[in-house]
Parts: sequence; C-alpha cells; structure tokens
Amino acid sequence: MPYHAPVDEFAFLFKHVVDYAKLRATERFREATEDVTQAILSEAGKLSDEVLAPLQRAGDMNPARLENGVVRSSPGFAQGWKAIAEGGWIGMSADPEHGGMGLPMTLTSAVNEMMSGACLSLQIAPLMSQGQIEALHHHASEAIKALYLPKLTAGAWTGTMNLTEPQAGSDVGALSTKAVDRGDGTFAVTGQKIYISWGDHDIAENVCHLVLARLPDAPAGTKGISLFLVPKYIPNADGTLGRANDLKVVSLEHKLGLHGSPTAVMQFEGATGLLIGQEQDGMAAMFTMMNNARLGVGGQGIGVAEAACQHALDYAVDRKQGHTARAGGAGTIVDHADVRRMLMSMKADVFAARAIALSCAMAIDMAHATGDADWQARAAFLTPIAKAFGTDTGIAVAEMGVQVHGGMGVIEETGAAQFSRDVRVTAIYEGTNGIQAMDLVARKMMDGGEAAAHLLDEIEACAEAARATLPDLAEPVWQASETLREVTEWIAGEPDMDARFAGAVPYLRAFARVMGGYLHLKAALADRGGTHEALARFYIKRLLPEHVGLLIHAQAGAEDLFALSAQELVA
Amino acid sequence: MPYHAPVDEFAFLFKHVVDYAKLRATERFREATEDVTQAILSEAGKLSDEVLAPLQRAGDMNPARLENGVVRSSPGFAQGWKAIAEGGWIGMSADPEHGGMGLPMTLTSAVNEMMSGACLSLQIAPLMSQGQIEALHHHASEAIKALYLPKLTAGAWTGTMNLTEPQAGSDVGALSTKAVDRGDGTFAVTGQKIYISWGDHDIAENVCHLVLARLPDAPAGTKGISLFLVPKYIPNADGTLGRANDLKVVSLEHKLGLHGSPTAVMQFEGATGLLIGQEQDGMAAMFTMMNNARLGVGGQGIGVAEAACQHALDYAVDRKQGHTARAGGAGTIVDHADVRRMLMSMKADVFAARAIALSCAMAIDMAHATGDADWQARAAFLTPIAKAFGTDTGIAVAEMGVQVHGGMGVIEETGAAQFSRDVRVTAIYEGTNGIQAMDLVARKMMDGGEAAAHLLDEIEACAEAARATLPDLAEPVWQASETLREVTEWIAGEPDMDARFAGAVPYLRAFARVMGGYLHLKAALADRGGTHEALARFYIKRLLPEHVGLLIHAQAGAEDLFALSAQELVA
Repeated sequence: MPYHAPVDEFAFLFKHVVDYAKLRATERFREATEDVTQAILSEAGKLSDEVLAPLQRAGDMNPARLENGVVRSSPGFAQGWKAIAEGGWIGMSADPEHGGMGLPMTLTSAVNEMMSGACLSLQIAPLMSQGQIEALHHHASEAIKALYLPKLTAGAWTGTMNLTEPQAGSDVGALSTKAVDRGDGTFAVTGQKIYISWGDHDIAENVCHLVLARLPDAPAGTKGISLFLVPKYIPNADGTLGRANDLKVVSLEHKLGLHGSPTAVMQFEGATGLLIGQEQDGMAAMFTMMNNARLGVGGQGIGVAEAACQHALDYAVDRKQGHTARAGGAGTIVDHADVRRMLMSMKADVFAARAIALSCAMAIDMAHATGDADWQARAAFLTPIAKAFGTDTGIAVAEMGVQVHGGMGVIEETGAAQFSRDVRVTAIYEGTNGIQAMDLVARKMMDGGEAAAHLLDEIEACAEAARATLPDLAEPVWQASETLREVTEWIAGEPDMDARFAGAVPYLRAFARVMGGYLHLKAALADRGGTHEALARFYIKRLLPEHVGLLIHAQAGAEDLFALSAQELVA
Repeated sequence: MPYHAPVDEFAFLFKHVVDYAKLRATERFREATEDVTQAILSEAGKLSDEVLAPLQRAGDMNPARLENGVVRSSPGFAQGWKAIAEGGWIGMSADPEHGGMGLPMTLTSAVNEMMSGACLSLQIAPLMSQGQIEALHHHASEAIKALYLPKLTAGAWTGTMNLTEPQAGSDVGALSTKAVDRGDGTFAVTGQKIYISWGDHDIAENVCHLVLARLPDAPAGTKGISLFLVPKYIPNADGTLGRANDLKVVSLEHKLGLHGSPTAVMQFEGATGLLIGQEQDGMAAMFTMMNNARLGVGGQGIGVAEAACQHALDYAVDRKQGHTARAGGAGTIVDHADVRRMLMSMKADVFAARAIALSCAMAIDMAHATGDADWQARAAFLTPIAKAFGTDTGIAVAEMGVQVHGGMGVIEETGAAQFSRDVRVTAIYEGTNGIQAMDLVARKMMDGGEAAAHLLDEIEACAEAARATLPDLAEPVWQASETLREVTEWIAGEPDMDARFAGAVPYLRAFARVMGGYLHLKAALADRGGTHEALARFYIKRLLPEHVGLLIHAQAGAEDLFALSAQELVA
C-alpha cells in the first residue's frame, strides 16, 4: 500500500511548533541548518516511500523463519537494510568520531518515525542499533568503541538488547544469566534471554548482543547486574570476523504482528563477552539504551498511526456508500459525519503525539547542547509521555483505521488489520506503558513536580498570549492546564506511592491530552484559517475534554483499588 | 484455556439488577421460574465450559477451509454444534409451536453470552439461526414455517444472513442481486453476496440463506428490496433434502480473527428462492433479524470480554514479577496498583456491559409479554447501546488482557491476542458501532427523547433512594444523569441531523457509562460490603467521570467537523 512520508508536516512542526531553530543557535548543532534539515527529511522520505514501504506487506505474509539454526529474513529486507545503512541513517545522531553524523535527535526522531510508518518490522533493526551505539558511546572502553562503533554505524553489524528472561520481564532484577570472569579480559556468559528483536538474521554480517547478566556473588536485584557485549562472531582486532561465539537461536516467536521482525529466544552457553561500563553498573548503561529506545518506540507508534491514517483516508475518499446531503462533498464515506469524526480524531491525535515526541527530542538535544539541567529534566519528564502516548495513539489510530474500513477492516488483504497487529507490542516493549506511567509519577516527580510545573507555565503563557487571537481555543487550553496543575501538585506531594501508581496511567494520558492541546494551539496560531487551525479546533473542543474524567480517576487513590483480595477478584 | 461460565453472576444480576422476577408475573413467561432459570443457566454453563471452550484455540489454529467447493469446518466444531443443537439451545426463545422453548430473551442472552465466551467462532452459527427463526416466525407463510422452523430449531439446518455486496455494505439499498418471479411460487435469485458467516460448512445437513434481492423494476434504494429464503439443498415437502440449489461458495475470507467461523463469498446463479413477507418489504423482515442479532452481537462482545478477563486474572495471580509491599498480597503482579487498575476496569466494564444487555433483553421480553409501548420503546432505545457498548467493551477488555500479559500478550500461544483478534469484528458486523450510534440519536429519538427520559427518571429515582445508604456512590450517579439529560434534550431537539451524528458515538458511550453507573449502584445496594460494592465504587469513582468529556464532545456539532474539504483532509 502506498505510504507518503509526512515531510512537509515535519518541516511545519520544526518551524512553528517545537522551535527547531533554537538548536542551530547552539555550537553543537550549528550545522543543522534549514537547508540541511530539509534535504535530510526529503531523502528519508524518499527512502521510506520508495524502498521501505513496499516491504511492509511482504514481511507480514512471509515471516522471518528459523532454518537449521539460522534465521532467514523476509524477502527484500536485506536490501531494505542495505539502503538504510548506506544512507547513513543508523548513525544520524551518533558521534562523528566513530562514523556518525552528529545530527540532532529531533531530526533522527522524524526520520525514525517515517521509516516506522513505512515498515515497522524492519525499522526495529536500526532502532536497536542506535540504542546500542548510544550505550557503547557512553559506557564502553575506547578500544571497544573503536572496533564496534564504525561497524554498527555503517550497518555492517547490528545491535540487540538482551534483558528479558522468562522469570524476569518488567522486573529485570530477577534475571539469572551468569557471567564469569576468565581473567583474560573476557567473560563467559551463560543463560537464556527471550524477546530478542532481530536476535539473528541474514541482513548483515554480525549481530552484537548487549546482555544483562550477573557476576558470581553479585547482590540480588538490579544492583547486581552487569552489562556485556556478546557478538555472534568474535571480531579480530582489524574488524574482520573470527570464530562463531557460543550462542544460538533456540526459536522464533509466533507473534500477533511484526512478522518480518524475528523475535528470538537466545541461548548463551559460555559465550565470550566484554564488560561494558563497570561491574554491577549494568543498569545505568542499559538505561542509556532504553531511554533512547523509549523515545524511538513512541515514534514507532506515531509512524504506524500516520500510515494507518493515510490508509483509512485513501479508503474513505474512495468508498461510495450511502447518500449525503453535504454540498461539495466527495460523495463517498468521507462525507459521513461519524466517519469524518474518526478521520479527524486520527489526524488530530497523530499531530499531538508527534508534536509531543518532537518536544521530547528537542529537550534531549538542548540538554546535550547546553548541559542545562532544566532541559535535562524536561527530557526525562517527557520521555515516558512520548513513549506511552505515542504508542497508545498508534494502537487507537490503527483501530479506528480498521473501523473506517467497515467489514473490509478485518480482511487481512486490506492491510488495515496489519497496522493494528504490528503496533500492538509497542505499548509493551521497552517498558510497558504502565511502567512508563509509574516512572512519570515516581522518579520523574522526585523534583517535587518542578519539570511539570515549568511545562505548565509555558503552556499557560502561550494560552494567555493566544487569548486575543484565538479565544475559543486559548481558554480551554488554559483551563485544562490549571486543572492539570492542581492534580500534578497533589501527586508530587503524595507520600503513598501506591496512591500515585493507582492513577499513573490516567495522569500520563491527561498530561499528554493537555500538552497536545497546547501544541495544537501553537500550530493554529501559525496556520490561521488552514488545516492546522481546523485540526486544533477539533482536538481542543472534542478530545481535550477527556482530561476531566482522566484527572478525576488519577486522584482516586489506591485504597478502593485494593478493596478486594486477589481471591475475591478471581472469584 | 479454561473458561468458567459466570453462572452465579447471571443469577445475581437476574435477581438484584434487572428484576427478572417481573417476567414470571406475566402470562407469557410464567413458566420461567427461579428453579427452571437456574437449571438452564447451569446446564448452559456446563456445555460452555466442557464442550465449547476446548474448541476456541482449535478453531484459531485450524481455520475452516474451502476444499473443492466444500467448506470443511475446524476440528471438533461439528460435535460442538451437535451438542448445542441437542441441548435445545438454538430454539430457546423460539415459538413452542415449531419446536422452540418459548423462554425469555433475557435467559437466551445469558446463554448466548456464555457460549460466546467459550467459543465465539462457533457461537455465530446458532446466533444466525436464531435470527433467521425470528424472521421467519414473523414474516414467513405458515407452510414455510411448518417446513423450515422445526429443522432450524433442532439444528438439522442452519441459517445465514445475506445482505452485503461489494458495493453495498452499510448502504444496503445499493444492492444489485436480482430475483425473478418464475410464476410457480418460486423466484430465481442471481447475484453475489459477501461476508456470509457460516455461509457453508459440514456441521449440519442444510444451509438456509436469507437473501436480500431486488425484483425487476423495483424502485432504487431500500424501498425496492425483497427477502428470499434460498436453501443450499431444496427440501421436499416431507423435510427430506432434494436437489442441490444453484449457488456456490466462491471463496472464504482470510480474516484477522474468528478463523473457526467460515466467512463466505456466495454466488447465486438463478438459485431457487421463496419470497418471505411481501414483495419490496424485505427490509422490515431483515430488521427483525438484525435487531435480534444486534443484541446477540453485543453479548458476543461481553462473552469475549468475560473470557479475556478470566484469562488475564489467572495470569495476574500467578505471575511473579517485582516486589510489592502490600500486606496480604499474592506476591504476584495482581498486587501492582496499575495491574490492579486494569483488572478492576475489565471486571467493572464487563458488569456494566452485561447489565445493560440484560436490561435490553428484559425490555424486549416485557414488550412481548405485555404489548406495552413503553417497554417496546425502551427495547428499541437500548438495542444500539447494548450492541455498541457490549462490543466496544469486548475490544477494550481484550486489549487490556493483552497488556496485563506484558510481552506474553503478543505471543499467539498465550491466547490473549486471540480474544482481541476474534472480538474485533463485532464492532463492525450487524451494523457498525457508528451506525448504531446514528440509529440511537436519529430513529430512536423520533419520540423527542421520551424513552431516554424514562430511563433517566428511573436512574435518578434509584440514586435518590440510595443517598441515605451509599451517598458517595449515589451522588455521582445522580449528577451524571442530570448532565446526560441536558444533552439528551439538546440532541432530541436538534433539527440538523449531521449535528446529531457528529456527536453520536460519544453520546452513545456516555449513555452507556451513566447507565452502567446506575446498574452498578443497584448491585452495590444488594451486595453491601461485597464484591459488587467494591466494583461499583471503582466504576463510579474512576470510569463514570469519562461521561463529562464525552458529553462535551457529543454537543460540539457538525460545523467544525467539516471545516476541511476531503482534499484538505487527505493532503
């Protein structure tokens, strides 16, 4: 199915909504000029439309498979990977010292979203590599960096994350994979890891696994975890490949979606690994990788939402069904009020989720460029929101896309259902959306709610300023922000963590709703009488009010939640 | 996976929430005593748990398939059908004169829900037969009734609905299948129909198709449509089967879910059909069938929700992950506040959706038993709500079930994803949920909102009475009802139908939310300190507030919705 990367929309958002120009004013990103940025967006759009989008159905219909211990990837995926690698897209934001381009994460986020919309199954591979590059950059020795980073950046090798074990999912600290120091600078890694995206494949010559494991006598829980780099083939010092390491793919999972992305059960049997960072400091390195990946996964959700939205729009302007009295209508289902409601919801939420994700990426870039603690705090605060709201939006928009198609929606050949199946896991991997929300109300509010308050100040300043020009939009945004501020202060001051957690998911969603209203308002101010004003009006009048019910829920506390025992709940 | 039909919960709802005893006070249903009712619920529960539930995964993994023009059903489905037929479950509410049991729809709805929760793919077959029995009962000649009804009721033959054509889905009036009078009491039916559930199979000896078609020179649109009964094998007068009719299965659809339910493209090539009802009066007969089926489809959604909820609960009380400080906790993820939030939401919404569906069924029964126009109006008003909220709840609860499972949720072997795939189409077939909502705000408000007002009076009377005993629950229900009343009056008085339609879906959902609050309150009053009070408190404090945002959306009108042209929307 055709996909058109939203290049112009990104250009609009950069210019009018997230103030991308701020980046160019910093020393670090002074080369990210408007021309360079536009050229990169256009190139990435072209790659997505022409090379990656045709792979999306192929991956679904011809899943990656395990043959005699070797994973065969879906048809065309190796060529797709080659195009991504040769375009330099893997190392866009990586350090130029090791082959990267040093571009802003804001730009990389846009590119990643476009690639996700085109073919999510394949895009997981470069996203995992990007996270690994980031983790090695911050935590690996110079020797490891010099050997691995150029290969990963060039796409000759790929990266994976090996966290989960059957008994250790969200509770990473329960893992039991062991690593023993051999005394020669290497470690012997033994254990089983599950849910390893692109754990093996034939699209590049080597697979580098970052594996969380426990040294002998390490303390229980997350404190005792170390991180190891375990390559499929052990490289020689010159980067050529040596012997096969002692690891294997046990099986591939049979999944709801993402059939083109091989999800492996990996067995490490005394495999040779290199310590990354300090002993028992593995979680810090893993969090570097996960934070990067969390924003990226949010972008995956938004990318699929964009693709599903385009797909549903194409159908709706074409499908004749029923009569409509609307003058100037297309004479197709797009003229029906309820279909229109769905399409406008989809577009308006894609805008909100995308603008939030880019705001998060901007904060990351500004923090990197300036070292400013406020930007750092904002990046940390927005990451779980970008991840959860981006992926929830992906799921909801793909669902609505199915609904727009009517009966055709559940017929697999139509393609609408695939978006829904593919995007579903994004709300689960890299930390479930519940974990994201708990992170938001606990760790990200250890500052007493200061990062949130700064954001709310910014929202209200914008709404104040917009009162003169767009009063019908400015006022609801201002009001919603005030309500959100009250609840934020309550949460930040609540000592009972279960009371915070009980309302964490509705709170996160309410924050996204209100922030989406603010970003829509900014867009409307820049596009008076245009598409963005119309979308903003739809969003602010119809979707923003959802925050009222969510915030009541968010403040309800934990007591009633646990009124029933587990036994009573099951009975 | 194990499924336990919620027999005790139905008994509780009958007694304390929907006033089932009222039925026994009528002449028509005086035999539906408490003992009979309980025995039937228990028997149906046993059938569901022991015979049908084991078929659910088998159907998914071994889809029905077309072999040399004949449909082979999934393993075990023929035996499952036989058990349903022999138990008398198909004709539970059918006229005793033709082999039915004449039991209330309220009881049939409970039984249908249990069978849906056990194995939705198979349960579609009896539901379609029930709709056909109802349509023939009201519209067919005595001769046709005498020949067909006993066979359909006994499950020797099955029934299908043939409405949709490639160009005629929600817009049934666009259909082009033709019927020509042969002058011998039969018609020659020619055309193609799609999405025919159980359009062919090998679980019973004959398949009776109810086919909408157009006579020569019939007017365009729905007015020109007639209904024909077209059997796969043309029966002799004694009920034995004669020659094969001129129809065939062209193909089976490759669907997102319900792999055990064959969805056929049917080709009629001058097939012999019998006129049902008057010429050009086919829509009336079809609506008899559809109204029955709409409530039934709502029950399908609820059945899957119940099963998905049980499945998630089983996992949550078993899965160890992370630490929890809760005293008396199970030490598993059920102790985590956010997991608990999901599980309570699932249970509370299953209750609400089920209680609404049973309230609708009660209204249908009371209308039949008393002929009272108010009961008739209530049944008509609640049908779209029961269908849409039941199926939306099925989808949402199955989704939450996936989320509770974390990474396991998207692994097909777990079974959580199957609920989500199977239930998805219920929001689409028998009239999309958007069509349901439009029906609610248009046709079902032609009375100026009187049926709605009577319901709101009842809700407020209950809330008033509960103020003394459960003030923290009664007050929010009363307030919500008042808000809903204002919006209902606005909709009922709004002359611009597009303005009504623009808010139809959020209005329907808000009505369900508020009515769910009322029914939860009734349950809490009857179960002080018990599970139902705890669920009611959760629902009323956390889920009911959703109505605020929905009702703002419902009143936003159509103007902004059409601010963009179709071209601008796609751009």
